[in-house]
Amino acid sequence: MAVKKNNTAIKNSPKHLLGIQNLSILEAKAILDEAKKFIELNRSSSKKLDVLRGKTQINLFFEPSTRTQSSFDLAGKRLGADVMSNCAVINAGDGRREHPTQALLDALTIINRKGKIEGLKIAICGDILHSRVARSNIYLMNMLGAEVNVIAPKTLMPKSINRMGVKSFTDMKKGLEGCDIVMMLRLQNERMQGSFLPSKREYYEFYGLTPEKLKFAKKDALIMHPGPMNRGVEIDTKLADDINVSLVKEQVELGVAVRMACLKKYCK
Amino acid sequence: MAVKKNNTAIKNSPKHLLGIQNLSILEAKAILDEAKKFIELNRSSSKKLDVLRGKTQINLFFEPSTRTQSSFDLAGKRLGADVMSNCAVINAGDGRREHPTQALLDALTIINRKGKIEGLKIAICGDILHSRVARSNIYLMNMLGAEVNVIAPKTLMPKSINRMGVKSFTDMKKGLEGCDIVMMLRLQNERMQGSFLPSKREYYEFYGLTPEKLKFAKKDALIMHPGPMNRGVEIDTKLADDINVSLVKEQVELGVAVRMACLKKYCK
Amino acid sequence: MAVKKNNTAIKNSPKHLLGIQNLSILEAKAILDEAKKFIELNRSSSKKLDVLRGKTQINLFFEPSTRTQSSFDLAGKRLGADVMSNCAVINAGDGRREHPTQALLDALTIINRKGKIEGLKIAICGDILHSRVARSNIYLMNMLGAEVNVIAPKTLMPKSINRMGVKSFTDMKKGLEGCDIVMMLRLQNERMQGSFLPSKREYYEFYGLTPEKLKFAKKDALIMHPGPMNRGVEIDTKLADDINVSLVKEQVELGVAVRMACLKKYCK
Repeated sequence: MAVKKNNTAIKNSPKHLLGIQNLSILEAKAILDEAKKFIELNRSSSKKLDVLRGKTQINLFFEPSTRTQSSFDLAGKRLGADVMSNCAVINAGDGRREHPTQALLDALTIINRKGKIEGLKIAICGDILHSRVARSNIYLMNMLGAEVNVIAPKTLMPKSINRMGVKSFTDMKKGLEGCDIVMMLRLQNERMQGSFLPSKREYYEFYGLTPEKLKFAKKDALIMHPGPMNRGVEIDTKLADDINVSLVKEQVELGVAVRMACLKKYCK
Repeated sequence: MAVKKNNTAIKNSPKHLLGIQNLSILEAKAILDEAKKFIELNRSSSKKLDVLRGKTQINLFFEPSTRTQSSFDLAGKRLGADVMSNCAVINAGDGRREHPTQALLDALTIINRKGKIEGLKIAICGDILHSRVARSNIYLMNMLGAEVNVIAPKTLMPKSINRMGVKSFTDMKKGLEGCDIVMMLRLQNERMQGSFLPSKREYYEFYGLTPEKLKFAKKDALIMHPGPMNRGVEIDTKLADDINVSLVKEQVELGVAVRMACLKKYCK
Repeated sequence: MAVKKNNTAIKNSPKHLLGIQNLSILEAKAILDEAKKFIELNRSSSKKLDVLRGKTQINLFFEPSTRTQSSFDLAGKRLGADVMSNCAVINAGDGRREHPTQALLDALTIINRKGKIEGLKIAICGDILHSRVARSNIYLMNMLGAEVNVIAPKTLMPKSINRMGVKSFTDMKKGLEGCDIVMMLRLQNERMQGSFLPSKREYYEFYGLTPEKLKFAKKDALIMHPGPMNRGVEIDTKLADDINVSLVKEQVELGVAVRMACLKKYCK
């Protein structure tokens, strides 16, 4: 290829162990033969080798798997590698699953204003189905003693929602009744194009937060949004900026405080 | 376990913050209490602590999330960590979603031969449904003013294809009509085993690029392929190696140039 | 935002190249223009620049993609970056796909007890559909000459299972007939809540390994489990701890040996 033309040698990139499917039978057998020798080494009194001296091993685990991680950790150390075992992973939002620091900053923002979470009634409204913010907040607000209402059109409501300890509503006004906090979720643009929703205008009509709809919540209800906002889609512009009811700026500010607390706890 | 037998102490691996689901109520409350103190610190004039002095914080974001990233960045710095905030991520192909540097190198290869992209008619043919190369190329070629035809059997054509600003064809000859560039996609072997396709031979008959089918494109049409090629499946072997019509080698060569430009732009 | 209040400047976080969709037409054209210059540089005799001197480039590839990786590697070196090309990735279990070191440690455990894999009959029982352990073990045990039976309720059996070279059973007793090894899989709690399964008790009745069911396997059959075990769900507690038939502790011990062999092979 071009590389040859240029007379440049590409050093073979190192091989990775990504799956058994990419392994030849010879490679598999070689690993097993090598491992057999290590069984005895591991049962002897002096288990340390310096095969990997000078190498650094980083264990990156995106899912909790204590046993496998301990095993890799021990294996690396026995071979003399420097294992970065005090490396902590903090999830800053993964796909549709969880966004724990967002939920923690939302909780802190509420506590900062309302003094507590316990006993409050919190509405989460919008694309519940695809939202990691919704999922993490449902877990955390429930855990801290709030009552949670989720509000979404049928197509954006998870089928298993009632098993998450919340009440679900397709009628926004009913879902907002008696709520202390109204959390609006960002509507992902890609959802607008699919069969999930009819149009931005129609979405706004039924699920956009307006001063009129907000009246169905408590008088002193406060508004939150994880940002960035689609103004005129999920929330009325003026309402979003009204510092008497909107906590959006405070959420950003307190986000730093929560992440400092997490970094201190997990990385110190 | 075995570890005890060997009388080896496994130091507890550090905990990660992966989700609210893995958090106890005590842990959640401790984080919130700690964060409350940081609210005040952040509002005071001297905000710097040295809790994380000597630690390095790496922010790895695989999705764009400027606000969350800034927040983590600031949080780490306030605690005295060295934050690697000039670490750029360049997507080198992620799952089925995008492969931006491949599209950029394809564009560069076309520009290098045809002088421009604007006004050209480009056919992309093969497994459109699962191809990140197709997706990135559709975005880029459209953006640069080309007309894009996509050609695939029904089972390998995304249902939402027409919203992407392309014309879709199941008949390859019709899709090739008047095209300046014919991009063939690699057929993943795992697709061949499922219900997506009848057989390699049949696929080749209908969607393999042969000299006969190429005649339906423009006289001076050029062929591209992201590699590695399945010769005899999606493309005729001789055609693939014919330096008068095939740009495959040039794509590899120019790939290095495009990646240098990206590294310079994003990592300098 | 809050940040302004505090009079703190957030340095713009660096941009990433995540997809063509996030790229403006100006940015795309600027990259292509820059890349054009590099085409010539790459064809000249002195190709080295020092644009990225002092920077470290880490190529993280979670899927095999030799060509793209080589291209990025070369691009970084030409710009003077330190490229960590002797960084190896070892998959420690990814989602539902593969868990190669688990399969290797399972193979080592069997070899350590039975002397070989070839000719053995191995049953894998439980949530085959969602199990990366099952997938990796099917590949490896087949490769090493074992006969593999998979046992699962219909809802937890992949539709394409018979293409993987195994025999599938919904009746556990039939699937265990004549087996030398019985591998039980962990039942993920989240599966219990969905429509996959009726109840833990019912699952245990039909697919939990009990002394009674084990009698259908060979007399000297041995039991394995990747851990952590749901006692009383997929396996009887006493059976799990019976060191005459259970290899569970040995699996943990030998896991370290296998990972040492992998680290030595891939990272040395």
